[in-house]
Amino acid sequence: MAWADGELASEELEQLRDQIRGAGLPEGALAEWLDPGAPPSAERLLHLLDEVRWRAAEVLPERRRSLTELGIAIAEADGEYPTREERAAILRIEEALGLGGPDAVATLFDPARPIAPLPDVRPRFDRDAMAGFIGGPAPETRRRVCALLADGRFETVAGLSTAEYRALVSEWCRVLADEGLGALGYPAEFGGGGDPASFIATFETLAYFDLSLLTKFGVQFGLFGGSIHQLGSRRHHEKYLRDAGTLALPGCFAMSETLHGSNVYDIQTTAVYDPGAHEIVVHTPVPGARKDYIGNAARDGRLATVFAQLEVEGEGRGVHAVLVPIRGEDGKPLSGVTIEDCGEKLGLNGVDNGRLTFDRVRVPRENLLDRFASIDDEGAYRSPIASPARRFFTMLGTLVSGRVAVGSAALSATKVALTIAVRYGARRRQFGPPGEAERILLDYPAHQRRLLPRLATTYALGFAIHDLQTEYLAATTAGEGDSGESEVGDAARRRHLEAAAAGLKACATWHATDTIQACRESCGGRGYLANNRFAALKADSDVFTTFEGDNTVLMQLVAKDLLTGFRQQFGDLGALGLARFAAARAGRAIAERNWVVSRKTSEAHLRDPGFHDAVLDARRSDLLLSLARRVTRRIAGGMTSFDALTDCQHHALTAARAHVESEILRSMLAAERRTPSSGVAEWLDRLRCLYALATIERDAAWFLEEGYFDPPKSRAIRRAVTALCAEVRPQAIPLVDAFDVPPSCLEGSIGL
Amino acid sequence: MAWADGELASEELEQLRDQIRGAGLPEGALAEWLDPGAPPSAERLLHLLDEVRWRAAEVLPERRRSLTELGIAIAEADGEYPTREERAAILRIEEALGLGGPDAVATLFDPARPIAPLPDVRPRFDRDAMAGFIGGPAPETRRRVCALLADGRFETVAGLSTAEYRALVSEWCRVLADEGLGALGYPAEFGGGGDPASFIATFETLAYFDLSLLTKFGVQFGLFGGSIHQLGSRRHHEKYLRDAGTLALPGCFAMSETLHGSNVYDIQTTAVYDPGAHEIVVHTPVPGARKDYIGNAARDGRLATVFAQLEVEGEGRGVHAVLVPIRGEDGKPLSGVTIEDCGEKLGLNGVDNGRLTFDRVRVPRENLLDRFASIDDEGAYRSPIASPARRFFTMLGTLVSGRVAVGSAALSATKVALTIAVRYGARRRQFGPPGEAERILLDYPAHQRRLLPRLATTYALGFAIHDLQTEYLAATTAGEGDSGESEVGDAARRRHLEAAAAGLKACATWHATDTIQACRESCGGRGYLANNRFAALKADSDVFTTFEGDNTVLMQLVAKDLLTGFRQQFGDLGALGLARFAAARAGRAIAERNWVVSRKTSEAHLRDPGFHDAVLDARRSDLLLSLARRVTRRIAGGMTSFDALTDCQHHALTAARAHVESEILRSMLAAERRTPSSGVAEWLDRLRCLYALATIERDAAWFLEEGYFDPPKSRAIRRAVTALCAEVRPQAIPLVDAFDVPPSCLEGSIGL
Repeated sequence: MAWADGELASEELEQLRDQIRGAGLPEGALAEWLDPGAPPSAERLLHLLDEVRWRAAEVLPERRRSLTELGIAIAEADGEYPTREERAAILRIEEALGLGGPDAVATLFDPARPIAPLPDVRPRFDRDAMAGFIGGPAPETRRRVCALLADGRFETVAGLSTAEYRALVSEWCRVLADEGLGALGYPAEFGGGGDPASFIATFETLAYFDLSLLTKFGVQFGLFGGSIHQLGSRRHHEKYLRDAGTLALPGCFAMSETLHGSNVYDIQTTAVYDPGAHEIVVHTPVPGARKDYIGNAARDGRLATVFAQLEVEGEGRGVHAVLVPIRGEDGKPLSGVTIEDCGEKLGLNGVDNGRLTFDRVRVPRENLLDRFASIDDEGAYRSPIASPARRFFTMLGTLVSGRVAVGSAALSATKVALTIAVRYGARRRQFGPPGEAERILLDYPAHQRRLLPRLATTYALGFAIHDLQTEYLAATTAGEGDSGESEVGDAARRRHLEAAAAGLKACATWHATDTIQACRESCGGRGYLANNRFAALKADSDVFTTFEGDNTVLMQLVAKDLLTGFRQQFGDLGALGLARFAAARAGRAIAERNWVVSRKTSEAHLRDPGFHDAVLDARRSDLLLSLARRVTRRIAGGMTSFDALTDCQHHALTAARAHVESEILRSMLAAERRTPSSGVAEWLDRLRCLYALATIERDAAWFLEEGYFDPPKSRAIRRAVTALCAEVRPQAIPLVDAFDVPPSCLEGSIGL
Repeated sequence: MAWADGELASEELEQLRDQIRGAGLPEGALAEWLDPGAPPSAERLLHLLDEVRWRAAEVLPERRRSLTELGIAIAEADGEYPTREERAAILRIEEALGLGGPDAVATLFDPARPIAPLPDVRPRFDRDAMAGFIGGPAPETRRRVCALLADGRFETVAGLSTAEYRALVSEWCRVLADEGLGALGYPAEFGGGGDPASFIATFETLAYFDLSLLTKFGVQFGLFGGSIHQLGSRRHHEKYLRDAGTLALPGCFAMSETLHGSNVYDIQTTAVYDPGAHEIVVHTPVPGARKDYIGNAARDGRLATVFAQLEVEGEGRGVHAVLVPIRGEDGKPLSGVTIEDCGEKLGLNGVDNGRLTFDRVRVPRENLLDRFASIDDEGAYRSPIASPARRFFTMLGTLVSGRVAVGSAALSATKVALTIAVRYGARRRQFGPPGEAERILLDYPAHQRRLLPRLATTYALGFAIHDLQTEYLAATTAGEGDSGESEVGDAARRRHLEAAAAGLKACATWHATDTIQACRESCGGRGYLANNRFAALKADSDVFTTFEGDNTVLMQLVAKDLLTGFRQQFGDLGALGLARFAAARAGRAIAERNWVVSRKTSEAHLRDPGFHDAVLDARRSDLLLSLARRVTRRIAGGMTSFDALTDCQHHALTAARAHVESEILRSMLAAERRTPSSGVAEWLDRLRCLYALATIERDAAWFLEEGYFDPPKSRAIRRAVTALCAEVRPQAIPLVDAFDVPPSCLEGSIGL
């Protein structure tokens, strides 16, 4: 026994002798085994071990529950019956050595383990009802695109060169155009489908497959075609939209410059109107003003929507979009246009990103996309929007569709990763107690904690994203054909949409990066093989946090919008009024806390949707109020609002995140009220609890600091998250199955 | 003014009219501008705006500080002097509209911004002293390898096919072998350098360059050659070591199997001794037992160290290592050996990972690596280590070197990423207050918080890793030539080394994944371009969290080791004793808390190394004690120790992490006591504060829960982290420069 783990140091041998002596056991018999000066040789111990094993094999399994029991059984088989005192003494030694229980016995035997069947994974809810419920608008289009992706024309090929990959993606894009999917969102009179909902659904579904194709598709039909559709007037629609939709005219969306990506307001490309020639001269004044990272530019694009500082009548008019031909039919760059290739990228290598430099390129006046500003026949600048700032943000409003789309696509990529990781984790075994079957990975609490809160967040985000799509589509339909003027009254609605799109884009893409990484790691070496898709998912989705608006910049935009809303609501309070308001609000907060703060830790309380909503909303409101006070104080002290907000940037980003998380919860709560069946409702309820509590747990420090929780409650929430993970675990497979990731997109992976 | 941001909705117009009325201003004059039923046309507003701009240009800049002031200045220029009451009323309206301050004025003018020079980035400490101090053992070797990497033979080539990339990496590997770097760690009598310190330094330095080369180098010279060196006897050293070191004999380390990666104890490949033929029969009994992810297997390897369940005299002897030839000189697989290619991977595509399946392959008895167990001439199994478990862990102890190496390499990769991101962030400008130069990215608090605590952690981890290297080298030198028997007394030391290697490998590789990602995102679109290295760094280092031991499994190993240490220290307390001990300890903890808990929030206190150490140590001890109690209680209740620990897995992983973080701090504190100059000491002090406080901040919830902090202290720590970031920021460039990443490894990137 003493030597069973072969790790007895000299001091331990001494100890053991003391204990034997103290227990009144006969010392002499074991002396030869316990002399620290002359420990038994390995040879002798090996022989002893063989002997014990041999004898142990004859003992009935039920008497092998501990080494003491086994030893006594062997002794009894030889007709020797230890006294009660002897037994007690041996037990004490066993405990002192930490060798109690069946583990120590099991190490004597063969490591071969029994094989156990996998547990039942049948859904305990109506899977199709769930899939339909979480599937989002335009389900027929989703089904159609899934079928298309499986029809043999869309097959990824390993080991392609960048040139080959780009060619393949262009080919795929053409198939989609031929199927009419590219033009789905354009008006029917210009060859489109007049169905923006289906366009978004197509985009979201393509993201299950290849993200280079997704991006190329988005650049051509969303950004390029979309800019003509949304920033141009009828003339442009007639001239270009049909060709954009059929891919007869491949195009670019040239906004970012090398030195100005997020800060579009300060881009440096110029577009100067020459009234004599009725032409606009597009020019790159400094090298850093070249258009950079432009999708479709390096290989295919022929026409580009170029954003530039427009100058008319000798005066700067701010950023406007001008259509500039960049390549001829022969594929060669046109005169005055220099095109570079951005080269290899971290991912999305099927997209031909490039750089555009313009050397005084002249285009006709009509090439100005003039929905919001035009140049008249006399060369005068005209715009229905008076304020340059307002005009700028109206034009940038066209970016909303891209943000809605990227958030949706990020979620699809996340779903693929979770489907693969959960299915693998529910099948793969690793380690186990001696003599028993190895345990299923997903039965380990750490594995559950790694995947299941992220699964719950994916569900919650799904509802929020689909709500956003619906809101966006409603706004699009309402705004269709508008000149922009009549939207003035809708400023609040528009701003809400923009902030919601920015916040959800940031949260969904960060969630994607984080979850895909967690999924990769949770699949170990398997996750590293390209055929299991994490390679592409990780690399290709990585830039989602950057393009269509850098996430940090977007979250600041959310914070600014919250402050604007706050100001509009309480603006005339002034600095003093704000302080009075804060005091009043603090009183109200304490009153609210009586409810949310309560030390209740019952399961019913911790799973109460009212509790979740109150807590996340309180956090959002408190953070916003304290942010407003800090910013106001700084401005009152003479800072520009820019510096004041920068000084509170960490706070602002925290408030923005708290706001978005609270909104996501509300989308999920609203969805729960619409659930089609009790089975679906039951599991959505668990997922919402997991999302809410995991979100609260992550920010437990704040709730403790602010007195919303006492320490036992904080601990109870941690335990509740662990418990919810264990509860969700048996239905983890049906819950990822309901994502409806097309099987063709999992082919060859461990997720099938 | 009212229309300045062009965003006045109907209600706001109403409000404005009310205010004008309330202020006693003449209402009539403005009526035409404020009729919600008929708002002024854009044309009129545009004209007004042009007029205002024109007039504003004539006003002295010092009178443009607000719209009110500007308006009054224009009025005064026309000879109209508003009364004091009128001025006050206009000011009130300005405030109500939130249009106070210079921002609103600036929006009237041109967006073109002044250009500002970059701030001074000269080091305020002795840069070379810092670089030398943090550089780790064997500096001459590091310099030599850096020079080698820059000598023209090591140049990455974009756009290679996998086959070409593999060939290039093999070629590079040969250059390193020719330079004698591969054999650096082997004894001189077998053609080696007898200098394990330099071998590790080489490995750590190679990680600045190409991680495929690093991995290939590690597989050949570290794992394959190292297994022969550490598991074989003199016979094997004489026969193979020279050829392994010169790359004349490319080899593999075949441990992982498709179904058993982390759980090596249960691998299924068999090695049955045939006493008649004096041969060992190596066999893959089931498909899942094929060796998988084996580096060097798909293309180059000729001999493999195969881990298998050895059976001698009809009895299972546990996992042993056997040398099995897999390819002939012609590069073809040998009879009975099936070799598959793992194909494309997420990264490290210059490494030829493959799968090996054995169909009753016979090798001579001598191919058993027999340092710890042998088969004698009579076919009897002999081992100087009696316990199979002990033997198993002794053999696996050879994995320690790999873990030390991977942790070191992860840190080098992290240093490359930080060098690029910090240098870019200190140069790139983005946004700014109207009319001022754009701000430098790294001057934004959020950007600082993203990069600088990770910079501090990289410094801290560097000291811990170099301490680990030193400890490992001391143990290697001490153990050189040992049979294993005499190490029994060193069990505690060995276990400490193993646990330290496991814990630091996990923390350093997670830190690498996290930091490289943060660096990529902080460089925006630039970070996505392959030439800026994040593509390769991310993809290639990603598997570091998995290979040489999955991080989660390793952290559990750390937790188990802590429990073992705890048991050895308090084992004879029993369940009751443990409860008594916990009570006593709780008393002591409270006494300790009197010091650490104190509500002090002074800067001196928050930056006190004693405070940092006490807090992180208290966390480690508390978590371990509560873990021990929970596990003991479960075992007492009849669970196996496996299930007990699994049940507390989240707790165990948290305790392990707290332990490693506390050890990292101690390494940094010890380093500070050795600093060569006061300048170096001053900046290390700041970095240590930042590491410690950021680590504490991340776990603030725990400290609040346990009563170590009150809320004001928790907030003070958050503020201190932000303040430290701002303090470190001006020296961020010198601090990454001190990493000494070779310029050749930054070529073509934004980090140069």
